[in-house]
Formats: sequence, structure tokens, C-alpha cells
Amino acid sequence: MTGRRTRRVLLDRVPDGELTVGHFRLVEDAVADPAPGEVLTRTLYLSVDPVMRKLMANRTREPNGLNGVNSLGAGDQMRGRTVGLVEVSNDPRFAPGDLVLGWGGWQDLAVEKGDALVAIAPVAGHPLSVHLGPLGRPGITAWLGIVHTARVTESDTVLVSSAAGAVGSVAGRLAKSRGARVIGIAGGPEKCRWLVSDGGFDMAVDYKSSGFLDRLDEATPDGVSVVFESVGGAILDAALGRMRAEGRIALCGLLDAYQAGSGEAYAYRNFGLLLDRGLSLTGFRIDALTEHHPEALAELRRLLEAGALAATETVTDGLENAPAALVGLLAGRGSGKHLVAVDPRSVAGN
Amino acid sequence: MTGRRTRRVLLDRVPDGELTVGHFRLVEDAVADPAPGEVLTRTLYLSVDPVMRKLMANRTREPNGLNGVNSLGAGDQMRGRTVGLVEVSNDPRFAPGDLVLGWGGWQDLAVEKGDALVAIAPVAGHPLSVHLGPLGRPGITAWLGIVHTARVTESDTVLVSSAAGAVGSVAGRLAKSRGARVIGIAGGPEKCRWLVSDGGFDMAVDYKSSGFLDRLDEATPDGVSVVFESVGGAILDAALGRMRAEGRIALCGLLDAYQAGSGEAYAYRNFGLLLDRGLSLTGFRIDALTEHHPEALAELRRLLEAGALAATETVTDGLENAPAALVGLLAGRGSGKHLVAVDPRSVAGN
Repeated sequence: MTGRRTRRVLLDRVPDGELTVGHFRLVEDAVADPAPGEVLTRTLYLSVDPVMRKLMANRTREPNGLNGVNSLGAGDQMRGRTVGLVEVSNDPRFAPGDLVLGWGGWQDLAVEKGDALVAIAPVAGHPLSVHLGPLGRPGITAWLGIVHTARVTESDTVLVSSAAGAVGSVAGRLAKSRGARVIGIAGGPEKCRWLVSDGGFDMAVDYKSSGFLDRLDEATPDGVSVVFESVGGAILDAALGRMRAEGRIALCGLLDAYQAGSGEAYAYRNFGLLLDRGLSLTGFRIDALTEHHPEALAELRRLLEAGALAATETVTDGLENAPAALVGLLAGRGSGKHLVAVDPRSVAGN
Repeated sequence: MTGRRTRRVLLDRVPDGELTVGHFRLVEDAVADPAPGEVLTRTLYLSVDPVMRKLMANRTREPNGLNGVNSLGAGDQMRGRTVGLVEVSNDPRFAPGDLVLGWGGWQDLAVEKGDALVAIAPVAGHPLSVHLGPLGRPGITAWLGIVHTARVTESDTVLVSSAAGAVGSVAGRLAKSRGARVIGIAGGPEKCRWLVSDGGFDMAVDYKSSGFLDRLDEATPDGVSVVFESVGGAILDAALGRMRAEGRIALCGLLDAYQAGSGEAYAYRNFGLLLDRGLSLTGFRIDALTEHHPEALAELRRLLEAGALAATETVTDGLENAPAALVGLLAGRGSGKHLVAVDPRSVAGN
């Protein structure tokens, strides 16, 4: 044993419906010695993602394991992406002091296989956490939806749901960089103002406002040709109603469905428009499209360095507050990339 | 006036739920003289299609007329494709005795614009009604789904709903012609036997049988990569559950939704699999893809002449029985192309 100890956040109970901080438990354990090929890292930042809620439930019919999503059960440690500092390395590719992107999960210290780590470098003017946001999975997801799946061009009008979020905010910038007109959907007047003033969106519609559907109609008088969707449920239903013939929907998340109680399924009133208007709805999975990640990251880094990409963050301090950070994210609080600063001061200048 | 009179079938009341023959009314009128550019035709065959039920209702939210589907209201004459014989022509492209494919609707005699007519020729070994089935809109729809939308190859396993129908039966043959494995879903043991014995399907699953979902699992042990869907509702939900990662769904109809009462929307339990498995669902519209029709018709005619295409028909005699033919089609009776023989004996050898 290293003699080191680590705090870890476990999922204590699987939620049925709304997630609360009471579903989690903080424990402290000894850290095992890293085996050959393994690396011990100190967590600087950990990522908080909507999909974590999804992993806590598996409500689809899985007769033959066609799905393959790994669920989070009672007693499991919370998994997730981390930016870490190498402290001990039994992998020749990494040395103490290296900065890495990994899957350390919700703990102070993590032992990971070297194969799961990617070396990262600071980006001038940005904290290291940018590798969890616009240069991480949220950025890649946005790129895969806007560029690879929907193939947005300057002739498109793009509607982005959860537009102030980690993925949506990048999706909006990518669509703008291609010359499209971009409308964002977000919750609350503050987020909507931010989308237009700082986020690069042409217009924003508040889904929490009364008359949301009428506001959406007004913001899209000629309909939309592309929907970038990460919410599902009533938001996707409203978006379907605004789509032009032969429109494309890039689906990267169903946040509303994750939070719904088990057994519920949303009845889309506008499902028939997929047929009537010749629409295409494409679900896409970041891990099934890894061959496109280098191209995505290259463009995202270029835009970030050029100041054309939002790197907005909602940062919560302290591992012990990670459950509250996830609950807040799911409740729609904050904007941009949600993350927890576990021990960022381990690295100078960060 | 020509002095001619014609019987016409009107939609008397708009159905709210299940359609019955009581929703129709038969009337008799004088036929107007064809104006310049118009043609008077005698109806030989008229097409009976699931989409007719859909046109009787318009339950989608249509804030800005983005949809554009023409509905059928109370008192409207039933529209639809017809094979006709030219009796009077004020269009220089057509002469009495010509055979034409048109949109004459449910009547004995129709006056149509010449622009709406296409000259057709008999196909050896087949009645003229083949132009309403495998060489008509059902055949083109099947081609657009299997070839253009899903791009089926020999590596695919294809699941076809409503497989014994006018569209599904052709879709199965087209998928087989590309070397795919093809499983059909149909209602009742008789249709399922026919799919395998005569329809060219590798397997068939009876959705009316108890344990349908288990039978579907057994017929698709490795899942399916393509779904050709014309039914929607519980059938599509079951199909979604069997899809492999990155599978494609070609959606050409939502028959179940057409018959549902107004205001209902189906809640797809497996909707989330579109995301989890990276699926694409593409609605396609025959009238939006007219540039592909010539290629489709050329292949369909080739396959028909080679005996590799089903030209199964369910024929009802007499214009007055057209309502019963449509009700029967919607109730799942008969297989292949449903049509009404209005006056086929006007043409020798037919």
C-alpha cells in the first residue's frame, strides 16, 4: 500500500425519479499500490455530466444485451472524467508531475491503467479544466452533432436545446462558425440573455416562460432545418413542431428522460412529423465515432485559441460537494461546463 | 355537358378512431365537359391505401403550415390513384383508347388535367393494376426505403413491418435482391406462412400471436441492422428493441397512428435506444424524392419481368364496395396491393 488514503463518493441508493444529495455517500479508504502498467493520479478537476443520471437507471428492454451501457448501482463509486496530476507511475509513458485526462471518478486519488490516460498540456489563458469542457467530451459531442451528423452549412437555421450547457454552448459556436443562423433554448431569462450577449446565439427562447411554444414560433418564423437535441421530452416535441421538410435532428442526449421516474415514456405528439416532413433523427455516440475525435479536437482548439469558443464553467469547490454539483446541473442551475475543483492548486498557475 | 353521369364516393363524416363504411356516401352526378388541356377517363382500377385514413385527420400542431398534407374533410370526394381509359381528350398528348395512370379518385368517370396523367403500357403476364402496386407508388416507396434511405447491402439483417402489404412485400423482395437476410412482421398465421412460402422472406413473425416479443427475439438472435417501418406504435417499439448499434430505420408510414383516436400519441418505451445505440430514423416522402423515381421504376420493372417481385393483389369488385375495401385494408385483411376493380373489362385481355 502507498500509505495514502482517499475520499470517494459512492452512489448510496439508486434514485427513482429526482436525484438528491441524499442518494450519495462519502467514504474514506486506503489507496492500493499501482500495479505494473498503472498510474496513481491526484484529481485536480472532475467532470459532472447529465449522463451520470442516466447511468443510474436502465429502463430499456435489454433482451440480448444489445445496449451495452454500464449502469451505476447502489454502492458503486461514481465514475467520470478527471484532470489529474501523476504522483506515481508504473507506466513508462507517464512520470510524476505529468498532467493527464483520465477516468478517475469522484475521488481524491485514483489508480488507473496507463492505457486509459491521455497526456494534456495547458492552454494559454484557460484553466486545465478546459480539457473537460470545450476540449473534452462536451466539445467533441457538439462537433459530432453539428459537423459530422447534421453537416450544418450557412443555409441552415439551427435550434439548440440546453443551449447554455457544456455541449449546447459549443454547438452554438460551431454552427455560427459555419455561418448558420442559431437559436438557443435555455431555462430562465438570465441564461437566455447570456446566450445572445456572450454565447454567440442569434436568439434565445426561455422554455420556463409562459407561452414558450408561442415564443419559439416567433423566434423561428420560417422553421428550422437542424435541431441539436440533448434534452428530449417536451423540448424535443416543440422542436419537431418547428422543423422544415427534410430537416435533420442530431440527438446526443435525453436529459429529460434521465430524470423521469422509471417506467415512464414520453408520448411525442409530433412524432408523425418525422414522416410527414421527411425528417431524419440520428442518435450519435461519442465512443462509436472515435476516428473523428482528432479532427474535432483540432478544430475546437483552433476556435478556442481564436476566442471563438465559449469556455464558460460552473465550478463547485470540494469533492464532498460533487453530489450537490450534479443535483444542481440536473436542476438546470449554472451554465457551461459543470465541474468540481477537487485540488486544482496542486498545479501552479491553475 | 357530356351527357355522361358518374357515381362518386364521398367521405360523409370524418372518423374519430376506427373507420367504418358508415363514414362514406355514394352519390351520382353529371360529368362536366373536359376543358382545354383536360381529359375524361373511365376508371378501370382505383387504389386503396393506408394513407387515405391519415388524410381524414390532421392532429399535428400546424402553426405555420409547415406540413402541407391535404386533408380529406366531410363531404369531400375520396381522392386516389387510378388506372384509367381515355374516353375524351382535350390534351394533344392523349387520345381515346389510351391507358393512363392518374389521380381520378373514387368515381366511374373522372375529368383530369392532362399534366396529371402518365401514359402506361400493359406488362406481359400482369393486369394493368400492376401500375398501382409494384410499378406504382407502393413499389417506389419500397425502393426509396430499402435502396435510397437504408442503403441495404448483403451484410444487413432487415426487419419489415406490414410485410404482407403492398409496400412491405416489395421491400422484402428488394432487400433479398441485395443479399440481405429479411424478416417480416405480419398479422395472422396465414400471412406469415405466405411471407416465407411465396414472399421471399427468410422468416416471419405474427404480431397477433401471444408472445410476439419473444417470437421476435427468437427470429432475430443477433438483432437487426435495418428496419423498414410503415406501422409505428407498438410494432416500431418492438423493432427498436431489436436494433443493433448504428442501425437505420426507414420510416414510410405510421398506419397505427392513423387509426388511433385523435389526441392520442404513442409513448415509445424504446425511444432512448435511438441515442444509446446510435440509431438513425429517417422519414421519407415519395413526392419529395421524385428525381429517384425513374431509377426505382426501372429496377422494379426489371425485377417484375424476371419474376423476382411479388405482384400480389387483394381486389374488391365495384366502386360501391370501395369503402369496404379500405376498411378491410385498415383492419389487416388481405395482402399485397389493395385495389378496387371498377371497370377493368373495358380493356380487352385485362
